Amino acid sequence: MDQQKTRLFLDDLVVGMPFKSGTVDITADEIRSFASQFDPQPFHLDDEAARSTLFGGLAASGWHTAALTMRLIVDSLPFDGGLIGTRCELTWPLPTRPGDRLHAEGEIAEINPSRSKPDRGIVVMRSRTLNQNGAVVQTLSASLLVFRRPLTDRT
Amino acid sequence: MDQQKTRLFLDDLVVGMPFKSGTVDITADEIRSFASQFDPQPFHLDDEAARSTLFGGLAASGWHTAALTMRLIVDSLPFDGGLIGTRCELTWPLPTRPGDRLHAEGEIAEINPSRSKPDRGIVVMRSRTLNQNGAVVQTLSASLLVFRRPLTDRT
Repeated sequence: MDQQKTRLFLDDLVVGMPFKSGTVDITADEIRSFASQFDPQPFHLDDEAARSTLFGGLAASGWHTAALTMRLIVDSLPFDGGLIGTRCELTWPLPTRPGDRLHAEGEIAEINPSRSKPDRGIVVMRSRTLNQNGAVVQTLSASLLVFRRPLTDRT
Repeated sequence: MDQQKTRLFLDDLVVGMPFKSGTVDITADEIRSFASQFDPQPFHLDDEAARSTLFGGLAASGWHTAALTMRLIVDSLPFDGGLIGTRCELTWPLPTRPGDRLHAEGEIAEINPSRSKPDRGIVVMRSRTLNQNGAVVQTLSASLLVFRRPLTDRT
C-alpha cells in the first residue's frame, strides 16, 4: 500500500495485513534525556552505574522503546482519524541499547466492528520492535479505534 | 513506609500492600513537545485541529501519560534493584488534558517467587493514574522483577 497517501478505514483492513516501519536510531544521550524526565533509574541514566545492575550497561527505559515504537507505527499505519489506542499489552524481552537502530513490523490480528456504533470498530494490531540484529526488544498488542469509510464514500 | 529511605525487597511485600504517589502537572507545551517526538498526530499537537477529532481538544499521547505514571511510580515504590518491568497491560479510559494534575495509586496484586532463581521473583503491581477530578486516565498492570533480600541481610 502507498503509505504516504492512502488513508485507511476499517473497510480497507483484512486480518493478517502486514506492515513494516522505517527505522529510528537511539543514542546514549537520548536514553539519558528520556530517563531523566520519566524513568530516573541508574541503569537508564549512567553507563558506569548500570554495569553493576541486571542490565550490565546503559539500557533505555521500556517506555522510551514504547514511545519510539509509537512513532514508527504512526508513520506506517495511516488510519483515517489517526492511531487511537484504548488498551494494550507490552513485553520487553530485551533492552534497547545506545546505538540501536529500531524498526517495527506487525499485522492486523483482529477486526471487530462495533455493534452499537456502526461508524467504527476495534482493531487489534500486533507488532514487534526489532533492533539492527533482528532481536525483538518489544512486543505490543494494541486495541485501536478505527473508523469505517463514510457512507457517502463507499463504492 | 518511609518511601525516601526504605529499600524494598520481595520479602517485604504482601499482597494488597498499597502505594500512593506524589503529583505531576502537565502543560499544553509538554503535551505538544512529547507528541512531536513520539506521537505526532493532530489531536496531540494542535488544540484547534483536535477540536474536530474524537478528542474534542488537545489531549496527551497515551504514551506520555504512561511515561509520567512511570515517573510517579519510580518515586513511590523503592524496590532494591529498581523498578524493572517485563510486561504490562495498559488501558486509557480518558485522555490526559493540558493543566491536569496527575497522581498514581495502586497495590501489590501478586507475589510469585521464582522457582529457578531463588534470589528473585515476579511481582504484579496494579495502578491507576487519576487526574485532579478523581477520574482515571490510565490503568496499568505490570509484572516487575523484584529481588529477595540477600541471605546475609535476612534476620
